[in-house]
Amino acid sequence: MNSFHTHTDTIIAPATPHGISALAIIRLSGNEAISLAAKVFTGKDLTSMPSHRVAVGFIQDEGRILDEVVVTVFRKPRSYTCEDMVEISCHGSPVVVREIINLFTRMGARLAMPGEFTRRAFLNGRLDLAQAEAVADIIHAETENARQAAMNQMRGGFSKEIKQLREQLIDFAALIELELDFGEEDVEFARRDELKALVQRILDFTEKLIASFASGNVIKNGIPTVIAGKPNAGKSTLLNALLNEERAIVSDIPGTTRDTIEDEIILGGLLFRFIDTAGLRHTTDLIEAKGVERTRQYMQRAALILYLIDLTLATEQDVREQEEDLKKLNIPYLLIGNKTDKLTADELEKWKSFPMVFISASAGTNLDELKQRILEKFHFEQVKPGDVLVTNARHYQSLVETRDALKRVLEGLEKQISGELLAFDIRQAQHHLGEITGSITSEDLLDSIFSRFCIGK
Amino acid sequence: MNSFHTHTDTIIAPATPHGISALAIIRLSGNEAISLAAKVFTGKDLTSMPSHRVAVGFIQDEGRILDEVVVTVFRKPRSYTCEDMVEISCHGSPVVVREIINLFTRMGARLAMPGEFTRRAFLNGRLDLAQAEAVADIIHAETENARQAAMNQMRGGFSKEIKQLREQLIDFAALIELELDFGEEDVEFARRDELKALVQRILDFTEKLIASFASGNVIKNGIPTVIAGKPNAGKSTLLNALLNEERAIVSDIPGTTRDTIEDEIILGGLLFRFIDTAGLRHTTDLIEAKGVERTRQYMQRAALILYLIDLTLATEQDVREQEEDLKKLNIPYLLIGNKTDKLTADELEKWKSFPMVFISASAGTNLDELKQRILEKFHFEQVKPGDVLVTNARHYQSLVETRDALKRVLEGLEKQISGELLAFDIRQAQHHLGEITGSITSEDLLDSIFSRFCIGK
Repeated sequence: MNSFHTHTDTIIAPATPHGISALAIIRLSGNEAISLAAKVFTGKDLTSMPSHRVAVGFIQDEGRILDEVVVTVFRKPRSYTCEDMVEISCHGSPVVVREIINLFTRMGARLAMPGEFTRRAFLNGRLDLAQAEAVADIIHAETENARQAAMNQMRGGFSKEIKQLREQLIDFAALIELELDFGEEDVEFARRDELKALVQRILDFTEKLIASFASGNVIKNGIPTVIAGKPNAGKSTLLNALLNEERAIVSDIPGTTRDTIEDEIILGGLLFRFIDTAGLRHTTDLIEAKGVERTRQYMQRAALILYLIDLTLATEQDVREQEEDLKKLNIPYLLIGNKTDKLTADELEKWKSFPMVFISASAGTNLDELKQRILEKFHFEQVKPGDVLVTNARHYQSLVETRDALKRVLEGLEKQISGELLAFDIRQAQHHLGEITGSITSEDLLDSIFSRFCIGK
Repeated sequence: MNSFHTHTDTIIAPATPHGISALAIIRLSGNEAISLAAKVFTGKDLTSMPSHRVAVGFIQDEGRILDEVVVTVFRKPRSYTCEDMVEISCHGSPVVVREIINLFTRMGARLAMPGEFTRRAFLNGRLDLAQAEAVADIIHAETENARQAAMNQMRGGFSKEIKQLREQLIDFAALIELELDFGEEDVEFARRDELKALVQRILDFTEKLIASFASGNVIKNGIPTVIAGKPNAGKSTLLNALLNEERAIVSDIPGTTRDTIEDEIILGGLLFRFIDTAGLRHTTDLIEAKGVERTRQYMQRAALILYLIDLTLATEQDVREQEEDLKKLNIPYLLIGNKTDKLTADELEKWKSFPMVFISASAGTNLDELKQRILEKFHFEQVKPGDVLVTNARHYQSLVETRDALKRVLEGLEKQISGELLAFDIRQAQHHLGEITGSITSEDLLDSIFSRFCIGK
């Protein structure tokens, strides 16, 4: 797959979000990218312009000037796609973008599919599949930690090690298959002790990566969190208090204010996603024994429950019963005593022996301690440059399959099974390893991966 | 104003819309733009890179890689602002954009105000004020015609002619003021016949520009349109039929689908803006004599009324009365007979003598003819490259003031008034001409103009 392909068609797409803005970028890639652009660009002659140069001029359609633009030329293979590429930086007007794209499609360029630029980069060997997937992860990162984890993966991550180990596995498989050709002669080209050591090394590496998925998944996808409690315990007030503070923080750079994602907050670099409580209408049944099973089904989507208690109404007996039921769910939870501002000092004192965080959601009291306690539920350190984490469910699945195949190889070596069976399991292992980096792939898999990309990427 | 300014601070801003996309552009301009970027860019040494070159590398913050980026260097004065500029093309991730901007602001760059890049381009003499305003108009253009009109203006439009005429006026004013210095001596340096010819020439030019504002305004801001008629005449159905067809047309390029502007359609290159009928609840009173005055107030916002008649219910007498009332509003209107699909051929025949467009909004019958008839209400040709149109209300206002001052000069010349009074009116005229191109300006005016720009432009 990773050989250099020649694509005859030239693709075009906007690479920046639709909207009114200072600039918009339109990308072209393919054999005709430079020659098509040269036909309509009034600045320098692009066909003779060296790579990585910029020219200013107009895009003209038979005398009609569409826009004043800055054009950058990248010549193959020194471009994102490894093909000839042109990037047109025009005014950030949807009308201008549409007119320019229409002009190029009339000249024979084709609108790119989502992810088609990166797909070509993969097909031309510039990125392996795990790196290509990391490109999308960088773009979709919602926290600095998610960005860093994706960046580590894009820069190579575990790809190099996987490729090396897989090649060694392929060598062994070849030797064992050679033995099979000799049939009855009982030769042994592949030393079993060396094979065992290699398989064990790959197994250890695989297990380490599999183990990293727990944190990797949390970093990439966030922590599904439910705020539960009896009616009027203050659930919405708490959510709003947490969200509002967050909004104030994220909106300090004009133009980079996050779109209204109503139900996410970032604490200590971790994303907490609040599960829509409309879908969890019955969380108030949480404490009733008969409701527990059904609630558990809802709660399976949650990785954290913030359980609110209205201290002005609750009795100590209530709280003990509610905590008993919470424990049965077997999901990390935090008991939160709310409305402390409505209690006298004496009333508050009697609750102090309970393992609770005491807050007033409406007055905003003690929210910092609450956040601290939420974070303590997740043993988490900042992702550092070079940290290798599996964040992708597809990679996780392939690693699990690899591990299972490797275990069968080890068992087979123990039991001294035939070379034929051994070779089968080794091939399985190297197949699944190859799926991660894209050495083994299919059009369907690529379609499914790249369709999730942005247009223009 | 148009002298070369030295700005010591370096500004930074995202230049592309906030959102998840293939690419985002971050712009830097100012004395330190290149040296700051060089500190954190791992690719080539930017400080020694020539202008208009592109380099690929990482943006690094003390070992932490923020993103793989493409950096373009523009050296003064060969840049948009005429200052040193750097454009960073990074992954289109809000997190990446925020991290990079934070890094630069920590190093001393300042977040740019809206329009600050273009303001610097104006202050450094790269664009006059009318051209700078045209930049914003290009970005906000909603039709191809609005884009073309703005492009003509950005490429110079009437600026050059206004500047020349204004300079001649200034020369005359100087000569007249020189006469005043000679006091009693009754010399005449400024030939009155030449002055008169010049003023007449400027007046003709000014009148022509003023006259162009009627079309210019329609092209830039669209035609406020009301769909009126009795309840159940089919007003919403017609609006939806017109809008739906439009949506199908605009959504054929992925990523350039217009944001849900629920109540605009483009016909023949003209934008028709439907006035919110919620604010016009009383358009159904349109035909009642007592309601006409109040309706007229609402209708003053409209430049076209599409008046719907339910042919299955109306009598000929009704229609005649309704048309009489419509005429009193003195606004272009179109009578539309709706629900033709519910009539027999005979029933339809009896209406044929009425000056109506016959449609069925629900069946979509005859909508093309309706569109044609709507367009006929506006004598309009496509804006061509080079057409000079005044589209800006500020320019229009200054032109009207110029015209009034010029008329006073002509009158004064007729009446042979004193050089002092003549010089005063000439100065008024050249002042208002100078406002258009920004030869005469104030911080307040610039603040007000550029605050309407996008951030990063």
